[in-house]
Formats: sequence, structure tokens, C-alpha cells
Amino acid sequence: MNNMTQTEITSTQNDLIKYIVKLQNPKFRKSEKLILIDGEKSLFDIVQRKMEFIWLFIKKGDERFKNAKIKNLVYVNDEILKKISTTTSPTSAVGIIKEKNVDKNIFKNLSKIALIENIKDPGNLGTIIRSAAAFSIDGIILFGSCVDLYNSKVIRASAQNIFTLPILRTNDINFIKELKKNHKLISMVVDSKNDFMKHKFEKNFILAFGSEAEGLSEEIRQLSDINLSFFMDNNVESLNLALCSAISFSYIKYLN
Amino acid sequence: MNNMTQTEITSTQNDLIKYIVKLQNPKFRKSEKLILIDGEKSLFDIVQRKMEFIWLFIKKGDERFKNAKIKNLVYVNDEILKKISTTTSPTSAVGIIKEKNVDKNIFKNLSKIALIENIKDPGNLGTIIRSAAAFSIDGIILFGSCVDLYNSKVIRASAQNIFTLPILRTNDINFIKELKKNHKLISMVVDSKNDFMKHKFEKNFILAFGSEAEGLSEEIRQLSDINLSFFMDNNVESLNLALCSAISFSYIKYLN
Repeated sequence: MNNMTQTEITSTQNDLIKYIVKLQNPKFRKSEKLILIDGEKSLFDIVQRKMEFIWLFIKKGDERFKNAKIKNLVYVNDEILKKISTTTSPTSAVGIIKEKNVDKNIFKNLSKIALIENIKDPGNLGTIIRSAAAFSIDGIILFGSCVDLYNSKVIRASAQNIFTLPILRTNDINFIKELKKNHKLISMVVDSKNDFMKHKFEKNFILAFGSEAEGLSEEIRQLSDINLSFFMDNNVESLNLALCSAISFSYIKYLN
Repeated sequence: MNNMTQTEITSTQNDLIKYIVKLQNPKFRKSEKLILIDGEKSLFDIVQRKMEFIWLFIKKGDERFKNAKIKNLVYVNDEILKKISTTTSPTSAVGIIKEKNVDKNIFKNLSKIALIENIKDPGNLGTIIRSAAAFSIDGIILFGSCVDLYNSKVIRASAQNIFTLPILRTNDINFIKELKKNHKLISMVVDSKNDFMKHKFEKNFILAFGSEAEGLSEEIRQLSDINLSFFMDNNVESLNLALCSAISFSYIKYLN
């Protein structure tokens, strides 16, 4: 707790408060490389991971963050908390942390990688991150044009798992080609004759999922070493992306 | 197409139109035992299943339902379609079908039954129905106080699978006790020491899932023959209900 500043802010018109509110804009958030955390469980997860809050906004008398690493502690009131948080229900604290750079080269040494392309739905993305953490995946690549990874809905849906695995955001197809030197690229599609459940997974692989609306791009499919599908009963054509990935990850963890 | 009536309605104040709008109220819908279908894919699914529309509301010149079984064909305009449909996007047709009674005794002869207790989220319920149809489940019991099965959101999320499997709604614990004469009752919980993935499933079973908020009730847990959990990495505590059930169903289909 050394060098921690402590201040109190009582007006929603304060410049810092205005700045924090602006972080709700994804472009501005990205350019500032800051992440807003407002779910209670997520906040305590940050404490447990010993990550540092650049700012932590709490009410006077709130003793729950005594063990947190905090750069600037700011006492605020309910009105300000409501203004800076993104949830509809009342929030008791809001934290701001720094976005860490992910070194893409570490992915060369991971064995089980999931690649998600052009995913737009924040709830789906958070859910996928949660099940990847639950079942054996070592890292995630968000490829193409995806929803902002640090959207509050993604963070909440990930249920405290957004910081568990390395997650790389890229649209550099050459990097995928480079990974392919040591990884099989396996594409999940709806029309393959290869049964996912009969596939013997290689030690190193990238398992690629497209968005629900569009599936995988031609760019990824053409690089793919093999396409796999789930074979389903009752002429069910497809499953939603979050289910499809969760089934895949659990299969790889338990049964491969 | 014998005995089909044809009429045209041009006013949103027409009594039949008012009646159809009232079906959006779940209590009224249930008491009338009618189901409103307004997703295009769902409508064509009804045609393909050769189920009868009590009313089908379409625009003049719409030739897509030539092969449908229709009791009362009603020509309407866009304004009326918008009023009677539950979707936010424009709908090109709305159909009303009769709710069929499910004979609970057929469940005694099913081998793989999923039981879902107190589920409230229509999207989750539809998704569970979809994956149950995709992966080997023979029938579903909705136990306790669940969201209306024929809520439009459930129908859409089920992706044309709401009519694939028999689905029984009941809160009669004695019926579950009766089923237990020939079925193992297996409860999915978050705190069991028994690994789901190591369980050898019996031929006849009821696999029970509680709501995300509350888990399974004591009533069901006490009847349970065995509790199972997923063993997960990274201290992930739980998965959402739709994922959990999809993983279970796929495991039972493919690997048991």
C-alpha cells in the first residue's frame, strides 16, 4: 500500500469522473489501454490475482479492499458510482486496471489454442473464455473483427476468467501461418464429413470457430489442415457457438 | 386443404386480431392452449412436420404456404402482422397452432430423460431443448416453476426443435418417484466428488439440472441416486446451465 494516493470526489462533474465515464466508449478505452471493472466478483478476483488498480473508487468506510494493490484510492458517493459503472444494478465499487500487452510469441509454445473469428456477441465471448479456462485450453486468439475483449459484458460473462488465459487479438494471417509450422489448424464447420468426436487431437493445435452468423472466413478455411463437424440427431443443423466450443473443449480435456 | 376458411382482415381493431394479441400474455396463452409461431424458420418447420395451423396470417400473394395444413387462412397487412408478432424485426407471417397434451406415461418408456428445474430464462431453455434434440436425449421434464415453454423466445432459441422431443411440464414429485422405479435419478451439482466424465450411465436415467441461480431443490436432491459434477481447471466453479447440459448430452451420445 506504499505510495498510494487517497482523495475524495463528491461531484459527478469532476474531470477524473468524466474521464472514467469516457472509458465506456470502446475506442477511447482501447486507446487509453485501461480496463473498467465493476462487477463485485471481478473486483475481488483482481485483488486475488494481486493485479494493481490504477484507480479504485469506493465509498468511505468500505473495508473490503484492504489487501488490494491500489495506486489511487478515490472515495466517492453512490451517485458517482452509478455514473461510472456499466451495470444497471447498483455497484459498490469500480476499479480501473491497465491492459497488459500479450506477447504473441508465447503462443508458439502453447499446445492447445482456440481461435475465435469475428465474434460480435460479448456474452458469447465471455462464456467461451469461461469454458476454455474450465477445460484445458492454453490460450485464445481473437481473429479478425471481434467485439472489444474488455467490454464489461465480456468480463462478467467470463465469470472471473478473463485474466486466466493469454488472449491475443490479431488479424495478421501471417502469424497464423507461422503458428502452423508447429500447430495443426483445425476448423469447426457445419458441413464436414469428419466427425469431431472421432478425431484424435494432435499435441499442438489451433481449433478455429467462426461467428454464428457467418462461420469461418475463406481465409482461415483455406489454411485449415482439417475441417470437423459434430454429427447430430434429429436433423439439428448447428449449435450455438458457445455450446459448440464448450463441448469441444470438454472433449479435448477429458477424452483425448 | 379441404374445409379451409379464407378471410381478409384490414383493421388492427378486429376482434380476432385483439384475441391473437392477447395470446402474448403467458397465462392467457396457456388457458387457451394455443401457441403463437412467428419466426419464419419455425413456421416452415410446422409445415414440414405436417402440423395444422388453426390460423395462419399472411399477406395476399404469399405463396409459400401452399403445402401447409391450415384451418383458417387470414389475409392481413404489414400493420397487423407487426401487431400480432412478438419479434422486433418485421415478420412476413404469423401462425397459431394447438398445444398438444403430452401423456406423462410415455416417459416411463423413454430411456434418456433430462429434467430441468425452475428454469426462468427463455433463451437458455430453448438452447437446452436444441442440444437435447441434437444429442441423444429422448424426452425432457420441466419441473417446478419454469418459464412458459411456448414463449416465443424459447421457440426461437430451440431452432425448430421445440416439437422434436416430448416435453412434460409437471411439479408432481410423486411422478418422479414413480419414474424412479425404472430410472436412476442423477443430479448435476457443483459440489460433488463424483466426476461426471467417469460415470458409466445406466440405460434408463433422469439427468437433473437446477436453475443457475439456485441449483437443484432439496426435494430433487433428496430423491437423487447419485450427484455428479464436472471437474474443471483454473478453479472455475461452474458453467452456465445451457453449456453444462450440452456437454452432458454430447458426452452421453458419443462416449457412453
